[in-house]
Amino acid sequence: MPIRFAILGAGRIGQVHARAVAGNDSARLAAVHDPVAAAAKLISDQYGADIRSVDDIAAADDIDAVVLCTPTDLHAQQIELFARAGKAVFCEKPIDLDSGRVRECLKVVEETGATLMVGFNRRFDPHFMGVQAAIADGRIGTPEMGIITSRDPGAPPADYIRRSGGIFKDMMIHDFDMAVFLMGDMPASVLATGSVLTDPAIEQLGDYDSASAILRWQDGRQVSITNSRRATYGYDQRVEIHGSAGMAAAENEHPVRIEVATADGYTRPPLHDFFMTRYVAAYANEINAFIAALGGDATGISVGRDGLNALLIAEAALESAQTGKAVDIAH
Amino acid sequence: MPIRFAILGAGRIGQVHARAVAGNDSARLAAVHDPVAAAAKLISDQYGADIRSVDDIAAADDIDAVVLCTPTDLHAQQIELFARAGKAVFCEKPIDLDSGRVRECLKVVEETGATLMVGFNRRFDPHFMGVQAAIADGRIGTPEMGIITSRDPGAPPADYIRRSGGIFKDMMIHDFDMAVFLMGDMPASVLATGSVLTDPAIEQLGDYDSASAILRWQDGRQVSITNSRRATYGYDQRVEIHGSAGMAAAENEHPVRIEVATADGYTRPPLHDFFMTRYVAAYANEINAFIAALGGDATGISVGRDGLNALLIAEAALESAQTGKAVDIAH
Amino acid sequence: MPIRFAILGAGRIGQVHARAVAGNDSARLAAVHDPVAAAAKLISDQYGADIRSVDDIAAADDIDAVVLCTPTDLHAQQIELFARAGKAVFCEKPIDLDSGRVRECLKVVEETGATLMVGFNRRFDPHFMGVQAAIADGRIGTPEMGIITSRDPGAPPADYIRRSGGIFKDMMIHDFDMAVFLMGDMPASVLATGSVLTDPAIEQLGDYDSASAILRWQDGRQVSITNSRRATYGYDQRVEIHGSAGMAAAENEHPVRIEVATADGYTRPPLHDFFMTRYVAAYANEINAFIAALGGDATGISVGRDGLNALLIAEAALESAQTGKAVDIAH
Amino acid sequence: MPIRFAILGAGRIGQVHARAVAGNDSARLAAVHDPVAAAAKLISDQYGADIRSVDDIAAADDIDAVVLCTPTDLHAQQIELFARAGKAVFCEKPIDLDSGRVRECLKVVEETGATLMVGFNRRFDPHFMGVQAAIADGRIGTPEMGIITSRDPGAPPADYIRRSGGIFKDMMIHDFDMAVFLMGDMPASVLATGSVLTDPAIEQLGDYDSASAILRWQDGRQVSITNSRRATYGYDQRVEIHGSAGMAAAENEHPVRIEVATADGYTRPPLHDFFMTRYVAAYANEINAFIAALGGDATGISVGRDGLNALLIAEAALESAQTGKAVDIAH
Repeated sequence: MPIRFAILGAGRIGQVHARAVAGNDSARLAAVHDPVAAAAKLISDQYGADIRSVDDIAAADDIDAVVLCTPTDLHAQQIELFARAGKAVFCEKPIDLDSGRVRECLKVVEETGATLMVGFNRRFDPHFMGVQAAIADGRIGTPEMGIITSRDPGAPPADYIRRSGGIFKDMMIHDFDMAVFLMGDMPASVLATGSVLTDPAIEQLGDYDSASAILRWQDGRQVSITNSRRATYGYDQRVEIHGSAGMAAAENEHPVRIEVATADGYTRPPLHDFFMTRYVAAYANEINAFIAALGGDATGISVGRDGLNALLIAEAALESAQTGKAVDIAH
Repeated sequence: MPIRFAILGAGRIGQVHARAVAGNDSARLAAVHDPVAAAAKLISDQYGADIRSVDDIAAADDIDAVVLCTPTDLHAQQIELFARAGKAVFCEKPIDLDSGRVRECLKVVEETGATLMVGFNRRFDPHFMGVQAAIADGRIGTPEMGIITSRDPGAPPADYIRRSGGIFKDMMIHDFDMAVFLMGDMPASVLATGSVLTDPAIEQLGDYDSASAILRWQDGRQVSITNSRRATYGYDQRVEIHGSAGMAAAENEHPVRIEVATADGYTRPPLHDFFMTRYVAAYANEINAFIAALGGDATGISVGRDGLNALLIAEAALESAQTGKAVDIAH
Repeated sequence: MPIRFAILGAGRIGQVHARAVAGNDSARLAAVHDPVAAAAKLISDQYGADIRSVDDIAAADDIDAVVLCTPTDLHAQQIELFARAGKAVFCEKPIDLDSGRVRECLKVVEETGATLMVGFNRRFDPHFMGVQAAIADGRIGTPEMGIITSRDPGAPPADYIRRSGGIFKDMMIHDFDMAVFLMGDMPASVLATGSVLTDPAIEQLGDYDSASAILRWQDGRQVSITNSRRATYGYDQRVEIHGSAGMAAAENEHPVRIEVATADGYTRPPLHDFFMTRYVAAYANEINAFIAALGGDATGISVGRDGLNALLIAEAALESAQTGKAVDIAH
Repeated sequence: MPIRFAILGAGRIGQVHARAVAGNDSARLAAVHDPVAAAAKLISDQYGADIRSVDDIAAADDIDAVVLCTPTDLHAQQIELFARAGKAVFCEKPIDLDSGRVRECLKVVEETGATLMVGFNRRFDPHFMGVQAAIADGRIGTPEMGIITSRDPGAPPADYIRRSGGIFKDMMIHDFDMAVFLMGDMPASVLATGSVLTDPAIEQLGDYDSASAILRWQDGRQVSITNSRRATYGYDQRVEIHGSAGMAAAENEHPVRIEVATADGYTRPPLHDFFMTRYVAAYANEINAFIAALGGDATGISVGRDGLNALLIAEAALESAQTGKAVDIAH
C-alpha cells in the first residue's frame, strides 16, 4: 500500500513537493493544509487531496507522513507534534534558527522514535551527488581541502532577511552542510568574515550580503567558502573537493547549453536565475529518498542531526565574523 | 475549458505524452486506447482517463484532440480518420515511410482543415531551440553552412531495423528536419554515402549503420551530417550552424556535470545513454506547443509538410548512397 | 657535429624556420638565400648565417640540409637540384600543384636516395599529435569515422588565390593529409561540393570559398570535412575521430583562456586570428622532427609520398565537386 | 642602440631570461656571471656573452641593465650594489624574506633613482593579464570578491623549504600579489590557517603544505586563497574576480587540448606539471616589459613596492595562522 502523505504549507515549495509525492508510485498525496484557503484548494484540485486542519492531520489514521513547508518559526513545534502523533516527518530546513531549540526538538524526535528528514536539497542534486560518489569510490583519495562557492542572483526582500537569521544561518548553512556531507565529518573550528557590498539596506538590517569562511578540521583539513547575494550571470553553485589522489568538482548548470561565436568571442547563456529551476531534480530526488527511507532504504537521507550540525557551524561562523577570531564549533 | 485529449498507444512514448498532457493546465487527459489492456489500464489509473476503442474516440463529442503513439504503419490512416472526425491530431513521426502515401494523407488533412502536428521532438529541445533563436535574432548573420552529428549508443533490434525504412528514413531524418529548421528552407540536392561498420547483421537487413551526407541548397549553402549506430560514450547529439557573422552550436547534454581530475587527467561522466532521458524536456515542450497551438498560438509547431520534407530528403539521400551521385530533392 | 643548414626564402615562414633551426642544439644555420637582399640580410644578421646563391648552396661542402621556403612553382626543381647535390631537403607543402609533376620529382628523390620531408605542419601540432597518440594507443579502438573542420578568418588576396590551385589543393589539402594521418591509410573515393558564399570575386577567379567533402575508404570508413574562407571568431581548426571504442577530438586553441560572466552570459575571447600564431608549436616541432630524422629518428615525419597522397585526394575532390559524382582516388 | 644586459646566475631561470633578452630586438646579452663556470659557459657559448665577475659588471661602462637570478639571500645587497652603480635591475622575487631588509633596500633604490623591477611573473601571464584587462575595461564593474587557487604538483626538496620562508612567503606570496594586482589596492587585514596534510617531513621543517586565507579590504571587499603543495593532475593556477556587474576568471592551461570519450566518460590530459612550462609566455613577457620600461614605457611593470606589499601580507598571514586571529597588514 502506498505511503499516505499530508502537506502542510501549500506555497511555492509546497507545490513542488506535492508534485513529487503525487508522481511517486509508492506514495499518495492524501491531505493538504494551508491557512490560505486558495493555496490549499489548488493542490487539492490538482491531486485530489483532502483539505484538513493541522490537528486533524495529526490525529488522522490515514496519514503516515507529513511534509512541512510552513514558516520556519513553526517547524520545531510541528515536528514535535507530528513525531508524537507517530508520523514520519519531512521538514524544510531549518528546524529552528536557535541551536538550543533544535536540540530540544531532536530530543523529542529521539524519544518518540520518529523518522525525521531535514530538507537539505543540495545533497540530492545529481551533480553534487556525483562528487560525493567520486569521493566515496576512492577516486580522489582522502578528501583534504575544499572550495565551495554560492552566489545568489539577488538578495531576498528585506522582510525575508529580517527573519532569516542572517547570511550564515540562511545561505551559507547550505554550504556548511555540503562541507560536512562531502568531507565526511564535522569541522572543529571556523574563521569567517562578512561585509555589505551590494546594498546598504542589508547593513541596516544587521546582516551581511558578502561572506567568506574557512572551516578547519581537527586534523588540519580545510574548506573555503564564499557567499554573495549578487551574481549578475545567474545562480552560481559550485563545489570542488581536493583529495590525496585528485580533485572532484561540480560545475554550474546552464539551462541552455549553446555557444555563439562571433568577432566578440564565444558566448554561452547565463545560469539559472532561480533556485527552484536550478534544483528541480534535487527537490524531486529528496522526496523520493524520503519515501524510499520510509520503505526501508534510509541510505543517505539528511536527518535532524545534520540540521543541527550545519546550524552549529553557522553560529560559530557568525561569532568569528563578529570577533575576528577562530571559533570552535560546538557539538 | 481545458482541451480534452485521447491518447492512442500506451507504450513508452504514450506514457511520456500522457504525463505532459496531464501536467498542462489547459488540457485534460480524457481517454486512452491500447490493444494491450494492461498498458491502457496503467495510464487510466494514473490520470483517471477512460479506456475507449479507436472508433469511440473518433465518434466522441468530448474529445477535442488525439495523440497518436501507435505503430508507424497505422499513422496515415489514423490521421485521416481523426482529421475527418474533426479532431486535432498530434502524430509521432513519421507519417509514413513512403512519400506518396504521406502526400495522400496530407491532402485529406488539408481538405478537412484539421490541425496536424508531427512529433519532431528535437525542434523543442532547449539547446536546439537556443541555436534557432540565435539565428532568428541575427546574431550569426545569414546561415551558410552546418555540421550536424547524431550517434546512437547502440543499434536498435533487428526487428525494429527491418521495419524502420533504413538509417536515412529512421535516424538521419531527424537531422534533415533539423537542417531545414535551422537553415530556414529546403535544400536542393544531396550527396550521401552509407556503410556497415559496427554489425554485419545490419548489412543482412539491407541497411547501413554509418552514414554521411552533404545537403546543398540552390544558392550554394551546405550542411554536413554524420550518423552512426554506435557511440560508447552515450547519446551524441550536436548541431552547429555557421553564418556570415558567426557560429551557433548546441553542445551535448551531460546528465551529471562533474569533473574528476587525477594523474590520468580530467574526466567527465558519459552522456545520456537513452533518447528518452536526453529529450525529456523536448517531449514535454512539444506537447505544450501543440496545446498552445490549439489555443491559438501556432508559432513554430512542426506541421505535416515538415514531415513530408524530411522524408523527401531521406529518399534522395538513400538514392545518392546507392548511386554515388548527387540527387535532386523532390518537392 | 651539428647538422649545417641553408634556408632558401627568407620571408615570413623562412624566418620562423630560421629561428627553429638556430634554437636546436643539433643544428646550425650556416647559409641563407633570398632574391630580396634585405630579407636575406635580416636572417644573416640575427643568426650569423652567410648569404649565398642557390647554386653555391647546392655545391657547398659545408651544407648538409636545406629548408625550401621559396614560391611553390620552384619547389619541384629545387627538390631535384638539392637531392642530386646530396642534401637533405625540407620543403614547404606543396611539392607542386600537379600530381604528374610531383611523381617525376619523387622519382628523382627515390633515385638519389635523398631524405625529403614535406611540411605538413599540422601533423606536428601538440593537439592533433595527441589525437593521433590516443588512436595509436588503442584508446578509441579501430578508427571508423571522422569530422574535420577548417575555417579561415578570411580569404587570402586574389593574387594568392589565382596561383593557389583552388580551395581543395590549397586549403582542404591539409585536412586530406590529416585524414590520412589519423585514419592510417588512403581513402578510396570522395564526394565533394563547393560554392561561393563569402565573396563573388572568388567566383570570378574560378575558385570556391566554401566546400564540403566526404572521404570513403574501401571498407566503408568515412570522414567528413568542411572548409570556409570565413570565420569571424578566429582560426577554426578541429578534428574528431570516432572509433569502435570511443572518440578522440582536438579542440580549438584559445590564446587567452579567460571567461567573463555578466547578465549577457559567459564570454570567452576569440580564437587565434592567424595560422602562424595558431601553429607556432607545430612549426617548431616539424623542424625539430626533421633534424631528429637526419640524426636517425625518422619516426613519423611526413615524406614526399604524403604530399602526393594529399594532392591526389584534392584532385579527385575537385572533379567530384565539378561533376556531382563520387570519384575514385588515384594511387 | 640596444640595451646591454648582464645576467647574474646562469641556472634554470637564468637560461630562460637569457633567451628572452637575446630574442628581443631592443636588447643584447653582453655579459654573464655564475660561480659555476660550466653554467656561465653554456650561456656564453649560446649567445656570445662575456663571462665576467660581479664587480666587473657593476663597474662596466658597457652594461646598462642586470637580471638577478642569484640565490634569494644575495638579492638585496646586489640590488643595492647595481642601483648605486647606475644599472637598471630586474630581480627575481623575493627581494628578501624580511620586510625590514626590503624597506632598507628600497630606500637605496629610491635614493639612487634606479629602475627596479621585481619578477612577479604571473602578472605577465596572458590569461591573468586578460582578467586584469577585463576588470580595467569595466566589464565586471567594481571588483568586490575573489577566489584564487594555487596548487603545486609536488613539494620542493626539504633544503629548498628550509630556506624558503615558508608557504606564505614562498608560495602564497604570488597569490597575494595577484590579489593586489587584480583588486587594485592593498587589503587591510588577513585571516589564515595552515596545516600539514601531504608530508610529515614538512611539519618537521616548521612549515605548512596546505593553507587557506581570506584577505579583507578596509571597505569590506574579500579575496579567498587556497594553496597546496600537492596536485596529482598538474599545476593548478586559477583566479576569479567577482565585481558589481559580473565575474572574470582565468582557466587552467592544458598543454594538450584533446578530449577522449569512451564508456568511462570524457577525459582530457592533465595540466602542465612544471611552473616553467606553465609560465613560458609569462617569463618572456616580463623581460620584454622590463626592456620596454627601460625604453620609456613603464606601464604595468611590477616594482619594488609590489614586492614589499606582497611580503607584508605574507607576514600578516603567517601571524594569523599562528594566532587564530585576524591580523592587520602593515604599510
